[in-house]
Amino acid sequence: MKIAVDAMGGDYAPAAVVEGAVLAWREFGVESILVGAPARIEAELSRLDARSLPLEVREAAQAIDMGETPSRALKNKPDSSIRVAIRLVKSGEAAAVFSAGDTGSAFASALYELQRLKGVIRPAIAALIPTLKGFSVMLDVGANLNPKPQQLFQYGIMGSVYTEAVLGKDRPTVGLLNVGGEDTKGTESLKEAHHLFNRSGLNFVGNVEGNTIFQGIPDVIVCDGFSGNVALKVSESLSEMFTSLLRDEVQHSFRSKIGYMFLQNGIKSMRRRTDYSEYGAAPLLGVDGLCTIGHGRSNPKAVKNAIRTTADIVKKDLNTRIQAELDKHVSIQRSGEVGWRLWNQIRTGLFHGSSQESPGKEDS
Amino acid sequence: MKIAVDAMGGDYAPAAVVEGAVLAWREFGVESILVGAPARIEAELSRLDARSLPLEVREAAQAIDMGETPSRALKNKPDSSIRVAIRLVKSGEAAAVFSAGDTGSAFASALYELQRLKGVIRPAIAALIPTLKGFSVMLDVGANLNPKPQQLFQYGIMGSVYTEAVLGKDRPTVGLLNVGGEDTKGTESLKEAHHLFNRSGLNFVGNVEGNTIFQGIPDVIVCDGFSGNVALKVSESLSEMFTSLLRDEVQHSFRSKIGYMFLQNGIKSMRRRTDYSEYGAAPLLGVDGLCTIGHGRSNPKAVKNAIRTTADIVKKDLNTRIQAELDKHVSIQRSGEVGWRLWNQIRTGLFHGSSQESPGKEDS
Repeated sequence: MKIAVDAMGGDYAPAAVVEGAVLAWREFGVESILVGAPARIEAELSRLDARSLPLEVREAAQAIDMGETPSRALKNKPDSSIRVAIRLVKSGEAAAVFSAGDTGSAFASALYELQRLKGVIRPAIAALIPTLKGFSVMLDVGANLNPKPQQLFQYGIMGSVYTEAVLGKDRPTVGLLNVGGEDTKGTESLKEAHHLFNRSGLNFVGNVEGNTIFQGIPDVIVCDGFSGNVALKVSESLSEMFTSLLRDEVQHSFRSKIGYMFLQNGIKSMRRRTDYSEYGAAPLLGVDGLCTIGHGRSNPKAVKNAIRTTADIVKKDLNTRIQAELDKHVSIQRSGEVGWRLWNQIRTGLFHGSSQESPGKEDS
Repeated sequence: MKIAVDAMGGDYAPAAVVEGAVLAWREFGVESILVGAPARIEAELSRLDARSLPLEVREAAQAIDMGETPSRALKNKPDSSIRVAIRLVKSGEAAAVFSAGDTGSAFASALYELQRLKGVIRPAIAALIPTLKGFSVMLDVGANLNPKPQQLFQYGIMGSVYTEAVLGKDRPTVGLLNVGGEDTKGTESLKEAHHLFNRSGLNFVGNVEGNTIFQGIPDVIVCDGFSGNVALKVSESLSEMFTSLLRDEVQHSFRSKIGYMFLQNGIKSMRRRTDYSEYGAAPLLGVDGLCTIGHGRSNPKAVKNAIRTTADIVKKDLNTRIQAELDKHVSIQRSGEVGWRLWNQIRTGLFHGSSQESPGKEDS
């Protein structure tokens, strides 16, 4: 099994990416195909004394620049490193692809090259977030800013399969991220998704709020890509903020300094438990082929862990299981589509042009 | 100066609310008018040995129940404790009103009884969130789930005045919460708001992401009520999660236990710096009269601090300053409205019924 790696994607590419791939081979025995500018990749391999390792280098004529819009990159750069890497999955040369490059471009490229699984409206990015009980899965965290209820429903199905397969949780609990626990809260899209989940075979626990996430409730948090992205980034910076604050407090007294010294291992272990770079990769669920995305800031350690996580997911035969679960729920989803269309027609007729709505009762 | 307090609002009302009001008098000398069921309020006052304090009790014939929708409560309970309390502000008997009851109902009641400041499209709830540099102001955190660009613009203006007045920051920086730093990121509503801010007299610093919030950048975080609510609740539960994790780590070794003992004061002080109940009240900005909202879970300490915060805001003559700043920016806001209408017409013509959009490029 080989993982195609977009060597040119990420803030510290290609250096950090190539180093991560070398570490993934050395520590876990995972083979990568490094895709990008051969001269630059080989220079990094030489630097790391890794020319003799079984890491292939594959040329890509182009690389996507920071700030390039996904649609422009898709149109103008058919041979970007991410596209070439994804095509290795399509051709079967690689079992999966990993990129720490621009999320939007990776998403658009994967969609274009690999297509969606049957029936999937839009793929979603599923991230792991640290909780008191280990990790939960949150999706979507950035692919779709305004999903329809049927999309949210599919996120729940795909996220549930992913959590079961990768975190080993049996019948994971699924919740909708909302601004209140009651069924009447949130956008119309959330309320309709709530109905769909209620009728599904999933272990649905209803609405959850931002403060329950860290208690590890539920296992799968379903949300739109905007608030998911915000929640993820807030949670990523937690451990940073807390160790900073603690270090700050320690300066105030000699007694605290001693305490900090003694507690240092505990603090380090706590940081590790809440560190995104321990996993490093978020899969794009719903694409016909396995594609994982890393943080733009990924350092070699994060890339290494991301490649390992990607290889782990490959072994779980995720897409076959997702497809089966989606097929099982297709009639519930369709019933929702009829209701949703009807509601939108009524709404357009009743409220067109109206701007005053009650809080907690607005529509997407 | 007296603060009208909704004695029946909150998970632990009236006990926690009455106790908080008693503490606010005893510790800060702030006088409250307790609004609700007189017998129940007086029983609490007796329990606290506080019958002789200068705290007035005012009867309200109704109380809003948990889970009652704001629109239903507004229609069916004209004499709910929150409505009667708000009317005390309207009549001038109280300088401001505080409630820890249902946010939606408090919002709807304030809007109905007090009306909006001139030109305000919709009021917003402004919350303080802990950062490495102290506190930042985030708005909206739950009043409007899908604000228009002009609303986001007004949030920035109101939040800027509030931050200057209450946190004493000079020309506070204002940023838009988004999924990326580039101007091209986010919903159409965010992109349009970005243009409006760029042309304003505010100290606008562009888009900010969830992970910069804790660094105290920017002073004022402008966002829609949904993601603001999520971010606020996530940040509220941080200190809880971190002390739990740390306590957990400490169990593993004797060495760590000693460290924790020595560090306890530092940890306590850190918790205090990140504890929402140290402020306890979020003002509803844009309403013609001062109304603050507390956490449903508010304990006596949180209520006490909320009443003090409310009294502090009263002294700042906030609404006069907000009105002046809104008036100053009215032409920029109007220019945005024309553009926004035009864009919506074009969009309706071009994309009506289309559901496939690129990630990071969707519309609200």
